Amino acid sequence: MSPVGRRSHKPRACAVWSFFRAAMAWSSAVCRSHMRRSGILVKHLEKGHVQVNRSVGANVAADPESGGNDESEKKEGCKSFYAVQQDRQEQADRSVLISCHSRTEKKFLKYLSRHGDVKKYFFYESYGMYAVVEFANRESVASLLEAATMPSVNHESTVPFKSRLLSLRNLGSADSPNQRPGQKCQPQITIPINELIKRLSREERIDQQITSLTEAYQLTEENSRLRFLVCSLLKDIAAAYFPECTIKPFGSSINGFGKLGCDLDMFLDLDGISAQKPNSGLFLEYQTKRANSERAVTQSILSVIGECVDQFGPGCVGVQKILNARCPLVRFSHQPSGFQCDLTANNRVAMKSTELLYLYGELDPRVRHLVFTVRCWARTHSITSSIPGAWITNFSLTVMVLFFLQRRNPPIIPTLDLLRDLAGPMDKSMIEGNDCTFVSDFSKIQVQTNTETLEQLLREFFEFYAVFAFNKMSINIRKGKEQNKPEVAPLHIQNPFETSLNVSKNVNATQLERFVALCQESSWLLQQSETNTPRGGSGGDTPTSWGLAALLLPSQVAGIKSRKKRRQEPASERIKSLLESLKNKNQPNKS
Amino acid sequence: MSPVGRRSHKPRACAVWSFFRAAMAWSSAVCRSHMRRSGILVKHLEKGHVQVNRSVGANVAADPESGGNDESEKKEGCKSFYAVQQDRQEQADRSVLISCHSRTEKKFLKYLSRHGDVKKYFFYESYGMYAVVEFANRESVASLLEAATMPSVNHESTVPFKSRLLSLRNLGSADSPNQRPGQKCQPQITIPINELIKRLSREERIDQQITSLTEAYQLTEENSRLRFLVCSLLKDIAAAYFPECTIKPFGSSINGFGKLGCDLDMFLDLDGISAQKPNSGLFLEYQTKRANSERAVTQSILSVIGECVDQFGPGCVGVQKILNARCPLVRFSHQPSGFQCDLTANNRVAMKSTELLYLYGELDPRVRHLVFTVRCWARTHSITSSIPGAWITNFSLTVMVLFFLQRRNPPIIPTLDLLRDLAGPMDKSMIEGNDCTFVSDFSKIQVQTNTETLEQLLREFFEFYAVFAFNKMSINIRKGKEQNKPEVAPLHIQNPFETSLNVSKNVNATQLERFVALCQESSWLLQQSETNTPRGGSGGDTPTSWGLAALLLPSQVAGIKSRKKRRQEPASERIKSLLESLKNKNQPNKS
Repeated sequence: MSPVGRRSHKPRACAVWSFFRAAMAWSSAVCRSHMRRSGILVKHLEKGHVQVNRSVGANVAADPESGGNDESEKKEGCKSFYAVQQDRQEQADRSVLISCHSRTEKKFLKYLSRHGDVKKYFFYESYGMYAVVEFANRESVASLLEAATMPSVNHESTVPFKSRLLSLRNLGSADSPNQRPGQKCQPQITIPINELIKRLSREERIDQQITSLTEAYQLTEENSRLRFLVCSLLKDIAAAYFPECTIKPFGSSINGFGKLGCDLDMFLDLDGISAQKPNSGLFLEYQTKRANSERAVTQSILSVIGECVDQFGPGCVGVQKILNARCPLVRFSHQPSGFQCDLTANNRVAMKSTELLYLYGELDPRVRHLVFTVRCWARTHSITSSIPGAWITNFSLTVMVLFFLQRRNPPIIPTLDLLRDLAGPMDKSMIEGNDCTFVSDFSKIQVQTNTETLEQLLREFFEFYAVFAFNKMSINIRKGKEQNKPEVAPLHIQNPFETSLNVSKNVNATQLERFVALCQESSWLLQQSETNTPRGGSGGDTPTSWGLAALLLPSQVAGIKSRKKRRQEPASERIKSLLESLKNKNQPNKS
Repeated sequence: MSPVGRRSHKPRACAVWSFFRAAMAWSSAVCRSHMRRSGILVKHLEKGHVQVNRSVGANVAADPESGGNDESEKKEGCKSFYAVQQDRQEQADRSVLISCHSRTEKKFLKYLSRHGDVKKYFFYESYGMYAVVEFANRESVASLLEAATMPSVNHESTVPFKSRLLSLRNLGSADSPNQRPGQKCQPQITIPINELIKRLSREERIDQQITSLTEAYQLTEENSRLRFLVCSLLKDIAAAYFPECTIKPFGSSINGFGKLGCDLDMFLDLDGISAQKPNSGLFLEYQTKRANSERAVTQSILSVIGECVDQFGPGCVGVQKILNARCPLVRFSHQPSGFQCDLTANNRVAMKSTELLYLYGELDPRVRHLVFTVRCWARTHSITSSIPGAWITNFSLTVMVLFFLQRRNPPIIPTLDLLRDLAGPMDKSMIEGNDCTFVSDFSKIQVQTNTETLEQLLREFFEFYAVFAFNKMSINIRKGKEQNKPEVAPLHIQNPFETSLNVSKNVNATQLERFVALCQESSWLLQQSETNTPRGGSGGDTPTSWGLAALLLPSQVAGIKSRKKRRQEPASERIKSLLESLKNKNQPNKS
């Protein structure tokens, strides 16, 4: 048993608005894997004095008391994306989620240990306090569930559906009902932008600001485990009818670019169900319901799972079956974890995109830092939005950062075509007529030596897109070169796998203009001495914003938010003149 | 293995419009049980030369080649109602349903035997040919399913849901695709009323007509098995989420009064899920979805099961979730069996009513014969209907027959109060505040010697209700005596268990008048020498209708169908005068 979260020897990381109270002493498969890859490239960063510190869990090696008993973690550095995912799934299948309204930690652990070895556990807060408990063996989970009871109060009005989501109860004990664990239990909240700006302003270098932002925003080890656990709980519901199925997270939950609190995208994978038949003689076939199309089958299955989640799923609220969407889905809010969940089916191309982003993120730590920074910057200025619309999406922004990094000299990351050429026979992947092949073995990828600092790269990013010929050219990470636009959409970003599609088809001219104007302004701000150097007050409560923090100040760029608003709002003379110059600069790209 | 359906040594029974092609050589738990009970009472019937022959399966003892290897069947005579039901369920759980488009019986059996001993099997026709196969052990079913494949043609558009409903396929064989088994495969059709009338007219005694009608209408052994199998298949769907649940048939499928082709009423029983909790200390409770009421929980569960049946259930069509009904239900048509199915939940009082009817039916064979005859007579004259409305129901009619038999001198069946007084401690049953206690051990019930023949009883039945004081009195099988009506409903029949309810609350004055008028007419017809004696032509194709057959002739009673119609239709003078006399007779009961 490794009780974690007791030795907070890194107070800074602990003070972070961490989702979990006990995040410190853990290392994760993903994090370790990243650290090992980072080692190869850390020399570039050391030159720029940038400390790689992707996750609080990455510090575990420095802690002599923890983690030593977990051999498996040490080996994970050389595992493929899919092997890591599989380990995570397997780990989640051995875990349970327990609501702990009142407890004493020692008694709780003693109770759990009756059912077998507890490998890991941690507490967190979300609509009450919860514990995630990972047992060493699945049999322990079965034993725990065997001993669990149905709620007897109001027994008549409870749906007697059994899952791995449990509540700890205490009868006849002297414990106070609201007794809290020894350590503070941090609520699940995202850091407010103002707090982030203050924190960044206290840093002494822009590079540090960028890594600090990543640290503040990235998923924690615990949050990552919780995501896999929610998938595993949902899998139990689907597996009741499709025992061979799995439910896998995809997108930002596992691509390395997920922000704490981001949605949990999942897909139901039914590929495990085989349809082979004998060559001759009598045989039996399952009689099945036929549908007109694969889409109709997906709709059927999601309809039933959605109904189960809605009617039986404890803590699942706001369930919507959005079955007529292009990609049918079930959306719901999972209160015990706090996740907004989207479940789709057989979304294999999306999984390949996820793997590609993960790979790029692992190749060089600057990739993730830059993506986190650009995404945060874009969200602050309403370039991206949580509401669907004509806005640029996070995925589009990420591809734009990747493309920018491919265009450096020497390139920081290789083109997708190169990754495809490096692919081995096992990497071959054709999905619905699309070639999704690329190398999975990182060691085959030779990265050229580029020593640019994060500060340089951020400034160059804004400059690159401030003058990019969006009117004529398409962004193409497959070729690593801009191509002529095949269509008239204002912004054209080729879908990496479904190459005839435009990732940013939804973006209108106004939104693109706002993006370009913001790039120009940010680029300009980073060149001004009053914004690109620390400006004292580091000990005080409200340090003056500078560097990246200045780029995130809403007031600085309010005028750009929308053309209509700008004319109505009073703007400082400095901003006014800045905007005029931007407007003129922007003209050649139009029409 | 007992291959059945080969030795048709009872051609008459075989020629019956049997639902199955191979009904002859089987004995069933229910039938055997009935035969043993019948033995006690057969003396009364022998006096009246009435041959008890409840089911074709009852003849099995005469067949030296069959059934001898089944020890369990021999013991079933002394089993309680619930023990018989449990055996049937267990039998169904070991069975599979196989669609056989093309086959050779020998090869098919050889294929099946690879997976274990086949205990019983039979073929029947319903939207194609099917086989029900009962293995000796459940492991054989698991083995069979393990070997079964998913349909590979149009694999993309099939819901990969696995159940015990399979299709037999034949690859690379010389068999003709439409090859039929050696014996004829009778389609599932109910005997038309005209055919029944002809058959009855060939009988030589009214008693024989009555037993012949029962034989023609009652459920066969195979149909009974199929009903339990459909419950078992549906249980698999429900057990995916509620492993302890069972799905039980109730009502006419198992009460002994079911007609071939009657609806399959089922209920989901979740009582197996316990809610006990420890007395002290820490313990874990399943987190469950709460609902406002037990009704809301039932609606939730039925909603999910209904969705599964609709989306996944092969051969399940026309699925309706009728969740806002007084008793929420899921209705669907199960094509492979041909059953119209209604699934409710936790319908325990209905199960007690079923058991009571079963018990009354077992106490004396005349009970079932009279009920079948009266129900058939009522249906022919549209006294009952398959459409809900102001009509008398089959259940009401059955209670009226039971009440009539309690009023004989000496009584043929005891009152419900007497059955309650005979109950042992294990029979105690309180359901939702209703005392549903009555004796389950038949041997405790002393039946008095009543030697009336079926002919006498049928005539007396019509006379009894032709003059019954419906305007003042209530029919009460608990007391076995008419009671004063507690309410103004035209027809008042006390619900045997929920004693404050009127079983026939829905019946309006017009429908009651029609029933009384028909009783008067039928009573009168049975007294006429031209209708109550066989009238030759027994060798010909169209024998003259007499006795019971005459009572079923629609033309004889057309005038009574509805008052409006009667005035418009030309009626024979005989019928006209009959009706006038009936009208006058009926007056005192009105106002």
